[in-house]
Amino acid sequence: MPSHEQDAQHIATALRLASDALLLTDPNPRVGCVLCDAEGRVLGQGHTQKAGGPHAEVMALRDAAAQGHSVEGATAYVTLEPCSHHGRTGPCCDALIAAGIGRVVASLADPNPLVAGQGFERLRAAGVEVEFGPGADESRELNIGFFSRMVRKTPWVRLKVAASLDGKTGLENGVSQWITSEPARADGHAWRARASAVLTGVGTVLEDNPRLDVRLVPTPRQPHLVVVDSRLQTPPDAHIFIAGRPVWIYAAARDEAKAAALETRGATVTCLANADGKVDLEAMLKDLAARGVNELHVESGHKLNGSLIREGCVDELLVYLAPKLIGQGLDMASHIHAGGPLTSLAGVLPLEFKSVDMLGPDLRVVARVTGRDRF
Amino acid sequence: MPSHEQDAQHIATALRLASDALLLTDPNPRVGCVLCDAEGRVLGQGHTQKAGGPHAEVMALRDAAAQGHSVEGATAYVTLEPCSHHGRTGPCCDALIAAGIGRVVASLADPNPLVAGQGFERLRAAGVEVEFGPGADESRELNIGFFSRMVRKTPWVRLKVAASLDGKTGLENGVSQWITSEPARADGHAWRARASAVLTGVGTVLEDNPRLDVRLVPTPRQPHLVVVDSRLQTPPDAHIFIAGRPVWIYAAARDEAKAAALETRGATVTCLANADGKVDLEAMLKDLAARGVNELHVESGHKLNGSLIREGCVDELLVYLAPKLIGQGLDMASHIHAGGPLTSLAGVLPLEFKSVDMLGPDLRVVARVTGRDRF
Repeated sequence: MPSHEQDAQHIATALRLASDALLLTDPNPRVGCVLCDAEGRVLGQGHTQKAGGPHAEVMALRDAAAQGHSVEGATAYVTLEPCSHHGRTGPCCDALIAAGIGRVVASLADPNPLVAGQGFERLRAAGVEVEFGPGADESRELNIGFFSRMVRKTPWVRLKVAASLDGKTGLENGVSQWITSEPARADGHAWRARASAVLTGVGTVLEDNPRLDVRLVPTPRQPHLVVVDSRLQTPPDAHIFIAGRPVWIYAAARDEAKAAALETRGATVTCLANADGKVDLEAMLKDLAARGVNELHVESGHKLNGSLIREGCVDELLVYLAPKLIGQGLDMASHIHAGGPLTSLAGVLPLEFKSVDMLGPDLRVVARVTGRDRF
Repeated sequence: MPSHEQDAQHIATALRLASDALLLTDPNPRVGCVLCDAEGRVLGQGHTQKAGGPHAEVMALRDAAAQGHSVEGATAYVTLEPCSHHGRTGPCCDALIAAGIGRVVASLADPNPLVAGQGFERLRAAGVEVEFGPGADESRELNIGFFSRMVRKTPWVRLKVAASLDGKTGLENGVSQWITSEPARADGHAWRARASAVLTGVGTVLEDNPRLDVRLVPTPRQPHLVVVDSRLQTPPDAHIFIAGRPVWIYAAARDEAKAAALETRGATVTCLANADGKVDLEAMLKDLAARGVNELHVESGHKLNGSLIREGCVDELLVYLAPKLIGQGLDMASHIHAGGPLTSLAGVLPLEFKSVDMLGPDLRVVARVTGRDRF
């Protein structure tokens, strides 16, 4: 029987496989699987494919078969509990049992209520030895959006800003292209690519007319596009309309003519108003989760950024700081506190720096709103 | 004869010794010296002592003598050209020659016009072999303020700010204590300690009444204190007046009664007005250099910060970023551009990030104004 050290090593390999699937599996979780014999030799490995395709366990079983390896009595290392339900694919539990797997080491239980421990139970009932724990934190981090959607029923919201060292995201006249350099912009596209959807505000659409797709890095899929547009001001000829990409527009009131014009362009218009006649952001997040959005990548202006922060919708900040001073200009987010400007430092929004890296001449800071990942 | 590799190794040791003198030697440069025999064995080592005390070469010769080592024919590795003039101590060149040193490897020439190559010449004239080059960049960096004072005739100006991730240094009501945590504040004191003088504005004196001395780290000396106070509003009972510490107040106009009251407290009041009736900051910097200020550490509010940047006085920013969002609040520096708010990103003040480090929960960014170190 493999040692704890071997277990940790194989789970680390499975986590690397899962990471390889970062841009691929949405809205399914990124999962890796390694099959080993009693001596710890790898018999097969794989990761979840794109939605509708095989999961990690099936890929690993196929890999072992292709190499002519028997997996009778083998151990399956998998970064998430094998599924027990019939989705677009058959249950992975059944595949593992049918293949004669003797032991499963999983990082942690699947938060999906359709699985949630039933995978482990079904395996045990079939006589498979089950352990879990190793790599749990890493696997959850890798799938923080999936866990958020399953547990909180809202996406993991990551707000991206590019600013000068003095915290300005643009000039007073709105000019903001480009504050950061090419490596930071490409990195920003990589973060878009891992998200289920990119969200912006109609202000950004009207002012910058961006595409907000992934161009600067290779990707097997494009994220969906979400626009917060209370009064349906999105022009039907805006660059956000790209053939084949779903565009979800959230409005506060439905203007039939405008909605029809946008729907002709392939948009889905949804009305969710709050008491102020603006889009109900919390309700929008719930709706997005119901549509399968795990990670929501926000690229917007200071007003919508401020509203999202003020209404407690933001989990994480992805901040690029360029080595320059702008002086008077646009802030990252305006009106972030419901009570107006703070009068005491006790009221600040507390963050934790998760990572700090140089990207060419710029600095990337990933900061998490304190406590938001405790769900 | 030692190899280039050995030379580099001994110069690295001498640079470490010089770094050990970081807080000690002001206004003299931080210099280290290692004496080695032909086999590369260290015979003696030392660094410059506090002003008026022995220089690195003399300390190293004394160290060798104390250990009973002859330095006849030895190599002296020194991070700056040995001095050739009689200051408060005798010329180091003469001491090296008298001791029979056969070879001197120096990092670079002393920018002091009283030395400036004459040390090398005097050594060569006495038959000592002289080389220079290894460790030149590091030695100059370590003494950037000394080089600035000698070459530009102004101090190296480092502006320190503590801000939230969104670039705010305080609340709209002025509250700013404390945005950063203890490790960052202690680090800020370490940067104060290496400076010849700490500069602030009368606004900070009136609002925060700080001491602006070094308390959170041990130091063999306290920096001087400089106040920019156009109208001599500094209260004679302000906390900046600490027994034994020189306080230099720069005003735009001399009010005799106020000046006398401040001078009674030990302050030196100097009038240097510009055309706008404010303190002429450039003239002040020249005056500070004439008083021996190498590194000037600025801790002030956004107005004086802005004036210093706008008038081209700032070389480097020392920015602490705390993991929090303040939202509406005070910027790092106001009115940094002479022409008012920018209308094009071409006008930004370009920086280069020199270092990025975590200090407890906070982030420290050292950023240099592009080109300012090319003198």
